[in-house]
Amino acid sequence: MGPPPVTESKAPVVGIVMGSDSDWPTMRAAAEALDEFDVPWEARVLSAHRTPRVMLDWAAAAAGRGLRAVIAGAGGAAHLPGMVASATVLPVIGVPVPLQHLDGMDSLLSIVQMPAGVPVATVSIGGARNAGLLAVRMLGASDPSLARAMERFQTGLAETVAAKDEALAARAHDESSGPVR
Amino acid sequence: MGPPPVTESKAPVVGIVMGSDSDWPTMRAAAEALDEFDVPWEARVLSAHRTPRVMLDWAAAAAGRGLRAVIAGAGGAAHLPGMVASATVLPVIGVPVPLQHLDGMDSLLSIVQMPAGVPVATVSIGGARNAGLLAVRMLGASDPSLARAMERFQTGLAETVAAKDEALAARAHDESSGPVR
Amino acid sequence: MGPPPVTESKAPVVGIVMGSDSDWPTMRAAAEALDEFDVPWEARVLSAHRTPRVMLDWAAAAAGRGLRAVIAGAGGAAHLPGMVASATVLPVIGVPVPLQHLDGMDSLLSIVQMPAGVPVATVSIGGARNAGLLAVRMLGASDPSLARAMERFQTGLAETVAAKDEALAARAHDESSGPVR
Amino acid sequence: MGPPPVTESKAPVVGIVMGSDSDWPTMRAAAEALDEFDVPWEARVLSAHRTPRVMLDWAAAAAGRGLRAVIAGAGGAAHLPGMVASATVLPVIGVPVPLQHLDGMDSLLSIVQMPAGVPVATVSIGGARNAGLLAVRMLGASDPSLARAMERFQTGLAETVAAKDEALAARAHDESSGPVR
Amino acid sequence: MGPPPVTESKAPVVGIVMGSDSDWPTMRAAAEALDEFDVPWEARVLSAHRTPRVMLDWAAAAAGRGLRAVIAGAGGAAHLPGMVASATVLPVIGVPVPLQHLDGMDSLLSIVQMPAGVPVATVSIGGARNAGLLAVRMLGASDPSLARAMERFQTGLAETVAAKDEALAARAHDESSGPVR
Amino acid sequence: MGPPPVTESKAPVVGIVMGSDSDWPTMRAAAEALDEFDVPWEARVLSAHRTPRVMLDWAAAAAGRGLRAVIAGAGGAAHLPGMVASATVLPVIGVPVPLQHLDGMDSLLSIVQMPAGVPVATVSIGGARNAGLLAVRMLGASDPSLARAMERFQTGLAETVAAKDEALAARAHDESSGPVR
Amino acid sequence: MGPPPVTESKAPVVGIVMGSDSDWPTMRAAAEALDEFDVPWEARVLSAHRTPRVMLDWAAAAAGRGLRAVIAGAGGAAHLPGMVASATVLPVIGVPVPLQHLDGMDSLLSIVQMPAGVPVATVSIGGARNAGLLAVRMLGASDPSLARAMERFQTGLAETVAAKDEALAARAHDESSGPVR
Amino acid sequence: MGPPPVTESKAPVVGIVMGSDSDWPTMRAAAEALDEFDVPWEARVLSAHRTPRVMLDWAAAAAGRGLRAVIAGAGGAAHLPGMVASATVLPVIGVPVPLQHLDGMDSLLSIVQMPAGVPVATVSIGGARNAGLLAVRMLGASDPSLARAMERFQTGLAETVAAKDEALAARAHDESSGPVR
Repeated sequence: MGPPPVTESKAPVVGIVMGSDSDWPTMRAAAEALDEFDVPWEARVLSAHRTPRVMLDWAAAAAGRGLRAVIAGAGGAAHLPGMVASATVLPVIGVPVPLQHLDGMDSLLSIVQMPAGVPVATVSIGGARNAGLLAVRMLGASDPSLARAMERFQTGLAETVAAKDEALAARAHDESSGPVR
Repeated sequence: MGPPPVTESKAPVVGIVMGSDSDWPTMRAAAEALDEFDVPWEARVLSAHRTPRVMLDWAAAAAGRGLRAVIAGAGGAAHLPGMVASATVLPVIGVPVPLQHLDGMDSLLSIVQMPAGVPVATVSIGGARNAGLLAVRMLGASDPSLARAMERFQTGLAETVAAKDEALAARAHDESSGPVR
Repeated sequence: MGPPPVTESKAPVVGIVMGSDSDWPTMRAAAEALDEFDVPWEARVLSAHRTPRVMLDWAAAAAGRGLRAVIAGAGGAAHLPGMVASATVLPVIGVPVPLQHLDGMDSLLSIVQMPAGVPVATVSIGGARNAGLLAVRMLGASDPSLARAMERFQTGLAETVAAKDEALAARAHDESSGPVR
Repeated sequence: MGPPPVTESKAPVVGIVMGSDSDWPTMRAAAEALDEFDVPWEARVLSAHRTPRVMLDWAAAAAGRGLRAVIAGAGGAAHLPGMVASATVLPVIGVPVPLQHLDGMDSLLSIVQMPAGVPVATVSIGGARNAGLLAVRMLGASDPSLARAMERFQTGLAETVAAKDEALAARAHDESSGPVR
Repeated sequence: MGPPPVTESKAPVVGIVMGSDSDWPTMRAAAEALDEFDVPWEARVLSAHRTPRVMLDWAAAAAGRGLRAVIAGAGGAAHLPGMVASATVLPVIGVPVPLQHLDGMDSLLSIVQMPAGVPVATVSIGGARNAGLLAVRMLGASDPSLARAMERFQTGLAETVAAKDEALAARAHDESSGPVR
Repeated sequence: MGPPPVTESKAPVVGIVMGSDSDWPTMRAAAEALDEFDVPWEARVLSAHRTPRVMLDWAAAAAGRGLRAVIAGAGGAAHLPGMVASATVLPVIGVPVPLQHLDGMDSLLSIVQMPAGVPVATVSIGGARNAGLLAVRMLGASDPSLARAMERFQTGLAETVAAKDEALAARAHDESSGPVR
Repeated sequence: MGPPPVTESKAPVVGIVMGSDSDWPTMRAAAEALDEFDVPWEARVLSAHRTPRVMLDWAAAAAGRGLRAVIAGAGGAAHLPGMVASATVLPVIGVPVPLQHLDGMDSLLSIVQMPAGVPVATVSIGGARNAGLLAVRMLGASDPSLARAMERFQTGLAETVAAKDEALAARAHDESSGPVR
Repeated sequence: MGPPPVTESKAPVVGIVMGSDSDWPTMRAAAEALDEFDVPWEARVLSAHRTPRVMLDWAAAAAGRGLRAVIAGAGGAAHLPGMVASATVLPVIGVPVPLQHLDGMDSLLSIVQMPAGVPVATVSIGGARNAGLLAVRMLGASDPSLARAMERFQTGLAETVAAKDEALAARAHDESSGPVR
């Protein structure tokens, strides 16, 4: 028998961690995605390089405190997602945060290329919203009501595309510079 | 109330899909990791480009058939993980399979850079073993016995490192070419 | 005996598809190129990831509805061109749309590195105008009047270069900062 | 009224060109794909850098001689596809041939990044087979019997995947090292 | 016995060619460097892709008209330098012009990776000034007065560095935010 | 017996060199870091390419004049750090300065990929502050008071993270757009 | 007053750490370089991801135990050098170990792109020998006898080059295939 | 009046320099190309990093000793071509030598991205033969007999292509696996 549905939880079930509050403008998209699904979360500034032990302690306690997934964002030599993964049994989702140079390629490789034994579930560069949605999918695998919410979300995506399709059909020929036909 | 523990399941709970049986030598490491944790799985050859509708049908039915996570491996313009993710609410783990050229960088970018709305949990290039372990972490978030197994696994990793550390200490100076001290 | 000349067609002969209307500012250059050659087109918003079945259905019906080429633009993990190609016998031209990060390199590799069996005719990053011109070349191979129009177009390119050549000769030495000679 | 069906042609309808006979082991896969569809072809060694005028003359005469598409392979600073495209109205398909260094990335960028006005339909690195199949798609757009042959080809690809799927199902669990279940 | 000193020439001895006048803002730095050394030049807009025969004719005639080096700038699939080199015995200097995407990496590889037999002397991305200086070095190898002018130029570079060194020494500590010492 | 503590030195113990004063806005962050630790420094404009002998002479004399580490910044084909290292026994720290194109990747590779025999201690692209801190660590290895200052600095980093953590906790939920909980 | 000369130390003054004994074939070149200078070292297998706390404890105790520099090698998402640096005040030298894919580029970026505050002195991909030599330079800055040994080492490098120069002069013309002169 | 024809010179007119005799297997192709044109050369092992002053002295004396161009090969953080260029007025041709990792991309960027003022004429990765041919072109610009030899060489290249073209025509259809036609 598994744990109760996450949307009935009072306590956070997803931890969102980042190395600096300068990552929050990127990472809040993860929080917003979780909010859309009523999944409680907590956000923490924890640095692999500046507070390594606090970070490990937080990670080691995460599962016991009721968290069921962690989202970790970092940039450059981005060690936070992998180090959190080293100290917890929870699935860790890594968000490569792009910095001033290299367009996030360093962040991506530093997060995704983990050695065998300690995986990090990596999403796209700057893809914090998808990190939140991935956490929802993970939780939904054992929470039918959350899975249904994800189905409705996907239906909504499809409807948005259909509406854009109709709108483009209405204006595409007007906006192109060619001859009237 | 969530589903029963996955290790008591008779039916597969993780689907392992790939575009060709030539990916199996890479992808079987995912199966082996799941076997180590007694997580039942099924393996399928499904191609985004050659059997798109069979692939979508399989993905759409996956959750209803009891699967709780999907591992998808692909190389080059690697569309399989993202397309499976488009047709299921389950978490999809993508394994970038390296092909003859570009060392898997094309596979990685084709899998990880998914647009907002449809995430793929990407692991390292060729990292099928980590894909299996990531699936175990996902399942373990709602299955305490599986989480404990992951803890034992991590303890084992640490013990292996400790043993290697001891062994290296015994031989490192002998093997270096410097003067005796 | 082949089909009638495309420039006499009332119905669209080229389909221009994209994953979101945010791609239209890039993709309209394809439409404008087709307009210059009086080749009728239609534009659609179809998403590989958000409306996979609608997209496959559209692709499967394209040839039967009289389309003779498809231009598909996408960015990031750009799956639309390849997935359309999987469901049609028509030639599919892929336009890598550059997104916020990586300058379109992810889009390019996701489109061009298709596996054997399902080709995509890839043009340059952001090269929607060339996608339109490539469609004209394809159609012109069986439509002599269109081929002649392409010849005139190429003559026009050459004349523009000649005019620029003359203009530069007139001003180059004035604009350089060196001594009068 | 378009030209007669290409499969009834005695004369070549696709030209396959390359800068050196050392590219033939790569490029013959294009010829073989055309053979599978009974599309007549000719193969030429023409060098953008060593025989520029012969190459331009060949390209300029190609359409008049009955060719309806050109496949050009080149490596490194790969100029052949683009230069052929500059001198013909036919669609030109570029195959990036990988050389000893850089894994074909230089070849790819030199072919695909053509300026507006002169497109090259680029396929994957080393993707000569797909170049042949792309030519078939182009020709099939005005040749219903060829389009039907492409449909049968795609059905064949799907059947191959299905057969591999069945075969993998039979052996996957045997080959993984886990406990019997 | 070689030709007369280039600085006594009335006619151009260096040709500066580019595919479009949009390259002139980059390429004029080459002209300005030649002006500083009183080396006469001519500038032409010649396109490998839009005016291939005009370009080849110009290149084939260049040596006979008294040119002794060519500087060619191009971007993207940058074929102009290599194609000019194919049709002349003169040394050709290639300037990779950066375009909107990829930061000039495509331009660089398209120019520098020439096959054995037809070299292009490639300078840095956007390095038109160095292209001019390289032409001066080439010409100076058989023109002692020009070689001496290059020596004076290099002395001038060194003096500029020395002056900047002195100036920095005077202000560096003032501008740093640390404690007075 | 080693040299006296660097913080008691009147003379500079770290040399900061760069190829042009245009690098100073990047490199001054190294000076500022040294200032925070009361480590005396000198800043010089020395160019590997424009004043090679002055640069070598400075490097050869550096250790004798009391310097104990050198920080060298350069961009593009960045030769200064390696060339200084070739002429001194001191540890040389290289700072890859990003230029207009390639985002510093050329600078990084030109500095870090030194051949066996002559190492350069490379820091991140634009990482001049870390270069200063690395010099402090090097000096602190034989200067206990400096090592203690580095410990206090690291404690300060941790405290800053803790403060940001607390601040984020206070505002994260307010700033996310989800429903109140 | 600084510490005693390192070459008189009985205890290790440099720690060489790596994540697995599979890195030892690469990393032993660092040990061998230290041996050439009679600098005592110890080698440890410590994993950032498998034994994070053991690793941090070792790093935190390193300075107190008499170590004065650390050399850390790691590959892929290479976190070991940066994590050791987070827990010590000693200078940490990072060696990017190339793995099966990406040729060490992931290792390099994961090590060198450290955030401000925690530097890692990065050497070339696979450059363990240079890591050892860099440690010698660091130690030599406060140990005149070690600095003199480095001078002798550099003289030796120059002599080797001179000998190779002489040898090449003797055989170069014989080995080239041209006519006798 | 320029210098006498280089093919009448007894003394070397081109210097070929490299950092180690391990580069000779790559660089000898430059010597062989010069031999084909009867251009006398000398080969030297000179290291930017191990014998910086010997290298600068050689470069500074090169023009005075009768050399008229320098070919410099180097790999990794390849500083030799640029440093030689800093100390001579002669044109310097750089050959990026590929090392064990990164396929020569580091070598290429370290050589081609020279700052304004000091150009290096860069050829392809491993392109020593082209370096020799580029030197011949440079010398031929003031030596009509050498220019004519280059014309004959280019004619020879064209003839080789023509012969390969004929040979391929004879065997291409036999070797393709398709049906007889």
